[in-house]
Amino acid sequence: MKEFILKANKSATSGDINIKDLPGSAGRLDLVCRCVNSSFFLSHDLRRDTVFYSVHYGEPNPPIALKFIGDELKRLSPDERSIALFIKKALEKDSSKLWKESTAGIYTAKQEFRDLILEKKNENYRIFYLHLNGKPLEECNLKLNDDDDEDILFVLGDHIGIGEDDEKFLDELGAERISLSPVELHADHCIILVHNALDKLKNNE
Amino acid sequence: MKEFILKANKSATSGDINIKDLPGSAGRLDLVCRCVNSSFFLSHDLRRDTVFYSVHYGEPNPPIALKFIGDELKRLSPDERSIALFIKKALEKDSSKLWKESTAGIYTAKQEFRDLILEKKNENYRIFYLHLNGKPLEECNLKLNDDDDEDILFVLGDHIGIGEDDEKFLDELGAERISLSPVELHADHCIILVHNALDKLKNNE
Repeated sequence: MKEFILKANKSATSGDINIKDLPGSAGRLDLVCRCVNSSFFLSHDLRRDTVFYSVHYGEPNPPIALKFIGDELKRLSPDERSIALFIKKALEKDSSKLWKESTAGIYTAKQEFRDLILEKKNENYRIFYLHLNGKPLEECNLKLNDDDDEDILFVLGDHIGIGEDDEKFLDELGAERISLSPVELHADHCIILVHNALDKLKNNE
Repeated sequence: MKEFILKANKSATSGDINIKDLPGSAGRLDLVCRCVNSSFFLSHDLRRDTVFYSVHYGEPNPPIALKFIGDELKRLSPDERSIALFIKKALEKDSSKLWKESTAGIYTAKQEFRDLILEKKNENYRIFYLHLNGKPLEECNLKLNDDDDEDILFVLGDHIGIGEDDEKFLDELGAERISLSPVELHADHCIILVHNALDKLKNNE
């Protein structure tokens, strides 16, 4: 499984969202929507082997985690507004520790960013995070083949970043630093580059 | 200069656009907006060395070409809605053969897709178009250095594609076929991959 997790430091944690103001009052929810687009959309197809999480730390009820499962998604369109309407619906639900489905393939829970990453670590996922001084993904000896892909998680930050404490947490967890580009990019653009590196590696297996 | 041109087969050609329905009645204008995002946005910066064109063939007044010049853009936000509002404003202008500025760095003209490509050919741009059987961009011997970058144009299609006639036109013009991925991707995702390939090539010069 290929999974992505975004720390959305300012993104809204209730369904009381103004769809006309995703970047402002909804706390850069536009970026979350574009990350959903980048995670799943192919030309005329969806990436069914991908899961995307975003963990929101904005007002009024942080944290709220969202989970999108590629293999279960239905009726999702690639534009920000449609994706935001699905997110709004999910954030309108009462949340508890347990994942609850809102619409097909979209779940919410009251979970912390670090706890989700720890859970993946305990499930033996290889964990990567982006760092300008990391090594290229192509040099990480990923095991990719149709029957038995390695489980991998990519940790992403928003415009604020994940912060020093979370970087330390990831280092202590043995997460691997990778670099995708010589310039700093938005999280949604990074997802495109990760998918592309994996597509090419898999194609050359 | 790095330039991209998108053929937007169905995108609106007047300012009478419903911002709430970019994918539907505005003719996949959401894709055009995401291409603008991919062309210019870096984390906390804009790509000043890039120009993006989209040529719209939707109703009621085709064709209308839009031009975005990275070095002149101001107050552009990365979300689709803000970009769509700038495009709406540009499409509200009367258009003629001559480029007219609407807001900082955004221009419109009544120009055909092929004529714009021909113009670039006459200015000695190297022209590339995406094809699943093309060769990797990394093998195209691009000349990239700070003082004297080669001028390059990338031709992109929307969900419908550029069509057989335009492919033939590009072949006759000596355009080079490149491949970015083993899977078919949306145009905005292709722009990210082109930028990344060029960023890496330039970084290794």
